[in-house]
Amino acid sequence: MDLATVIGIGLAVIGIIGGNVIEGGNPAALFNIPGLMIVVVGSFGAMMISQPLAVMIGLPKFLMKAFFGGGAHDSAGTVDLFVTMADKARREGLLALEGDVGQIHDPFTRKGVQLMIDGTDPELLREIMEIEAESTKHRHEANYAALEFLGGIAPTIGVLGAVMGLMGVMGHLDQPDEIGPGIATAFVATFYGVFTANVFWLPLANKLKNNAKNEQHALAVVIEGLMSIQSGDNPRIVREKLEGFLQPRERSKKEDMREAA
Amino acid sequence: MDLATVIGIGLAVIGIIGGNVIEGGNPAALFNIPGLMIVVVGSFGAMMISQPLAVMIGLPKFLMKAFFGGGAHDSAGTVDLFVTMADKARREGLLALEGDVGQIHDPFTRKGVQLMIDGTDPELLREIMEIEAESTKHRHEANYAALEFLGGIAPTIGVLGAVMGLMGVMGHLDQPDEIGPGIATAFVATFYGVFTANVFWLPLANKLKNNAKNEQHALAVVIEGLMSIQSGDNPRIVREKLEGFLQPRERSKKEDMREAA
Amino acid sequence: MDLATVIGIGLAVIGIIGGNVIEGGNPAALFNIPGLMIVVVGSFGAMMISQPLAVMIGLPKFLMKAFFGGGAHDSAGTVDLFVTMADKARREGLLALEGDVGQIHDPFTRKGVQLMIDGTDPELLREIMEIEAESTKHRHEANYAALEFLGGIAPTIGVLGAVMGLMGVMGHLDQPDEIGPGIATAFVATFYGVFTANVFWLPLANKLKNNAKNEQHALAVVIEGLMSIQSGDNPRIVREKLEGFLQPRERSKKEDMREAA
Amino acid sequence: MDLATVIGIGLAVIGIIGGNVIEGGNPAALFNIPGLMIVVVGSFGAMMISQPLAVMIGLPKFLMKAFFGGGAHDSAGTVDLFVTMADKARREGLLALEGDVGQIHDPFTRKGVQLMIDGTDPELLREIMEIEAESTKHRHEANYAALEFLGGIAPTIGVLGAVMGLMGVMGHLDQPDEIGPGIATAFVATFYGVFTANVFWLPLANKLKNNAKNEQHALAVVIEGLMSIQSGDNPRIVREKLEGFLQPRERSKKEDMREAA
Amino acid sequence: MDLATVIGIGLAVIGIIGGNVIEGGNPAALFNIPGLMIVVVGSFGAMMISQPLAVMIGLPKFLMKAFFGGGAHDSAGTVDLFVTMADKARREGLLALEGDVGQIHDPFTRKGVQLMIDGTDPELLREIMEIEAESTKHRHEANYAALEFLGGIAPTIGVLGAVMGLMGVMGHLDQPDEIGPGIATAFVATFYGVFTANVFWLPLANKLKNNAKNEQHALAVVIEGLMSIQSGDNPRIVREKLEGFLQPRERSKKEDMREAA
Repeated sequence: MDLATVIGIGLAVIGIIGGNVIEGGNPAALFNIPGLMIVVVGSFGAMMISQPLAVMIGLPKFLMKAFFGGGAHDSAGTVDLFVTMADKARREGLLALEGDVGQIHDPFTRKGVQLMIDGTDPELLREIMEIEAESTKHRHEANYAALEFLGGIAPTIGVLGAVMGLMGVMGHLDQPDEIGPGIATAFVATFYGVFTANVFWLPLANKLKNNAKNEQHALAVVIEGLMSIQSGDNPRIVREKLEGFLQPRERSKKEDMREAA
Repeated sequence: MDLATVIGIGLAVIGIIGGNVIEGGNPAALFNIPGLMIVVVGSFGAMMISQPLAVMIGLPKFLMKAFFGGGAHDSAGTVDLFVTMADKARREGLLALEGDVGQIHDPFTRKGVQLMIDGTDPELLREIMEIEAESTKHRHEANYAALEFLGGIAPTIGVLGAVMGLMGVMGHLDQPDEIGPGIATAFVATFYGVFTANVFWLPLANKLKNNAKNEQHALAVVIEGLMSIQSGDNPRIVREKLEGFLQPRERSKKEDMREAA
Repeated sequence: MDLATVIGIGLAVIGIIGGNVIEGGNPAALFNIPGLMIVVVGSFGAMMISQPLAVMIGLPKFLMKAFFGGGAHDSAGTVDLFVTMADKARREGLLALEGDVGQIHDPFTRKGVQLMIDGTDPELLREIMEIEAESTKHRHEANYAALEFLGGIAPTIGVLGAVMGLMGVMGHLDQPDEIGPGIATAFVATFYGVFTANVFWLPLANKLKNNAKNEQHALAVVIEGLMSIQSGDNPRIVREKLEGFLQPRERSKKEDMREAA
Repeated sequence: MDLATVIGIGLAVIGIIGGNVIEGGNPAALFNIPGLMIVVVGSFGAMMISQPLAVMIGLPKFLMKAFFGGGAHDSAGTVDLFVTMADKARREGLLALEGDVGQIHDPFTRKGVQLMIDGTDPELLREIMEIEAESTKHRHEANYAALEFLGGIAPTIGVLGAVMGLMGVMGHLDQPDEIGPGIATAFVATFYGVFTANVFWLPLANKLKNNAKNEQHALAVVIEGLMSIQSGDNPRIVREKLEGFLQPRERSKKEDMREAA
Repeated sequence: MDLATVIGIGLAVIGIIGGNVIEGGNPAALFNIPGLMIVVVGSFGAMMISQPLAVMIGLPKFLMKAFFGGGAHDSAGTVDLFVTMADKARREGLLALEGDVGQIHDPFTRKGVQLMIDGTDPELLREIMEIEAESTKHRHEANYAALEFLGGIAPTIGVLGAVMGLMGVMGHLDQPDEIGPGIATAFVATFYGVFTANVFWLPLANKLKNNAKNEQHALAVVIEGLMSIQSGDNPRIVREKLEGFLQPRERSKKEDMREAA
């Protein structure tokens, strides 16, 4: 569960609707079927035009990743794994790692280690792993770009709703009683456009983009680790190199101990 | 037929116009010849100024690709093809592929395989294929960029229509009966500008941009495959490498079987 | 003559002004000396601040290129030329091309061929030609960027005109007769800002940017052709490589014939 | 203490609120609990959705860096340090630097020098240090990008507040006494959105981005210095090279003296 | 003196203020102390938050460069200088250039030539000069980016002024006499925001950005010239290569003469 997403949505809704209620507003006025239909159906339609069918079909599942994990990577664990493997590989040879492959849960790491054990040429190994990483990036990008498109289009569909609403109002300026509520209805479409875009689509797209960036960072640790073991770096160098990828607080305390020694 | 495009347009129009009807709006009010003329003819004119004549002439055909295919690539099939060829080339030599060239439908792949059989130097082959891919990219870019330009300019032409309309209204503020409908007419231009841009031009440009990206991805599979065969990689490595380009669900199950074995 | 530019301007003006006339608007209301002065002189002044004097002086001539050619490149002819030269060079040596240099009209190609005949080292030749191409790009960029700046600034100067106009109107809200026409006058500045930017400056800048891109594409054909001849590629390879740069319809039918044979 | 940040906030607040007071405005009108709740809680919520939890938790500490240092780097001191080390290394060998490592306060420089003394291969050393620098960049980017997102979203949440406020107003247009103050309240949300974004979030994000750029610049000096010492450059060359990174006024006067001599 | 800057400011002010006067506007209405205070002090404050103190301190001097030179580079002269040096170096050796170093006014060129005479390794020389060029770019970027930030923020501060002004107006809608002038005052802040941004900050930032680009172009000529002399190119090649950087009209007529011969 991605707590930030859930708490964030809670905060945003409470802040915006709650503030309106305190101000004396009537939240029921924010519920309006035609407005919802114009903005939600209209902007989904526009997004659908802009995307390959496959992306549209995969989107709900991808969107779930903003709520349920997908963001955190135990890169410190990856570093420890590679340091251990580097140590074993130096002492017993690369083939000795064969038995450990099954224990590796991350499929990307497992694929890389298996190829390394199979004696794949380092240049080729790097190439294969980079194609895999690049391809993952391409796939994620297609998904969050669809949400960004939706976030960009929704407010403009809200404007369409507002314009159509105001056109209706202008049609009977001679019935002053109608004007106020009429305009209020017209405003609802603007509200939906701005709200769905800025509270849902754009923040969610951004979360998924951030997750994708962090995943690429985590994949880079793995690729660097594979290269380092294959070029026969000693475990201390492997740690030194890979810990460069970690946040300072995630690093082992080895460096400080050396100074203390 | 690109279902996403067709369903998307349907949804967007139903959502926007339907929502307006439910709300009590009169869709006939959205039909206005002068407004259409200002926005559609005006924004097409502005786009035409911005583009080479050749792009303008090719645009209708290019636009059709957003409706009729052009987006999907059977990259899994391409991978199988290259694995088969790699196998044959290793057993019988590159020349043995001569007979298979005619079966290849994709002209890009066919050109590459033919050049490979002709004994073209790997560096040169990569260069020729990358020029071809780059050139395709350049051509597609010119086309969807024209649509993006149109999508960017249309709302501003809508503003021009609205301003001219409001100027007319301001001219006879002394005839209150005229104001309401006058402003409504002025709003129509805004509607057309925002609607054509955000429901047609920008989503369609985006679809074509996504198709172009996917095509570049598919061309990259081919180039990588050619390079891999030419450098004598064994079929297993060719598959390993090329499957990195595929979506996980498109991949063969070989990897899992290995584990199960 | 760049037909797209001329027809585009015609269409845009007819669409916008014509639509207004049909709607019952008075096009004379769109003619307003103070408004023109504010927007045109004001935005030209702002552009002038932003540019080196040399760019300002060269701009009118550069702008003419959007109307009179500059966009089309006979790249198919360039390919034929290089294939012919490659053939001659292989049979009679590079020096045999000496006699053909005079026939080459494009100065960039002529410079390259002359340097090649003079026995310039390939790396050096590529470097010289790329400096030349890069420099052309830098020069064009400076020019169309000035127009893009103008297109970006004009609507904001229109807003200044509108604000100043509305300030005048607000000064005598007690004379209701003055309000309508006063606001209309204020709208004119908005109109000029949006119109000049979106019908002239931005589309023209875009046309010149597209022309510049196409020119870079054409220069790339020449550089690749020079490199290919110098590295002794056979004419078939030269054609294969250079035709990759062409649009499919510009290519020779040789490839198809091979298949038919 | 980052004086520019503190003085800047003071100036901005005095200018904006002070100007309003002089104009006869009542600053108390700018204080409005529901408006604050909508904009501040709402935009924080939206930012939270868009960010990994770890970034949210680290943000307050990161934000403090815009107020308390983090921006200035004594690169002139770094240059002197490397020139001294280059001199010592040439005369007494790299191992002679062992005793100086403890004196180096900057952990990045210390790590690099230690690795150099340990005899790490130059390519490997550069790689390790660049991973470290890249990783720092990635971390900073994640933080200021969160603030940029907040700055981009806040005005749109202000618009939501305004729209909801105006909807309330429109609901009782028949009570004219209510309209003015009602609209004023609605304006407050717009004010908060624009104010927090443009006076706090965007400038602070920009400060942190500038600091991050300067830090990358400072890290580049260190990496270049390490490479230069390791490749055995003489101290004069080390200074010549590294002083290229400095602002002219930070450089030693050596160059001028040479001319005077 | 940068004529374009001075004439541009003159034109912009005359166009905007003059147009308003012709229209019957009262330019005195555009002078408003609280409005100026809000926009100018407010936006300076926001910029100050966003920048390192050192940039703020150096900004006035940097800004002066938009008025007094800094933009033009005698690259044709640089080319002649390098051709002469190439000739001398080939005939008498690199050391013969020692006597000419004092005559070189541009410090960047002088540094490069001195290093070349000192026998600096070509790779090292290029690296040193590129660090210097990159560092200059970094410094200029920091400065014009500050102005761009100011230009981006000023209109939003104008909006704040307008909103606060309108809030004041809304507070006494019951005194109709107050409304018109009150709104006019509110508009002044909008005017200042848009005016300072689009007539001063953004055009000046753009001028300085253009100057910085041209300077980088001029530095590239020098670096290329140094490399060319050091690699022993003959003077004709040096000219051929370096003239590629020049505008066509700046080039020597040598090429044409060759053809005429």
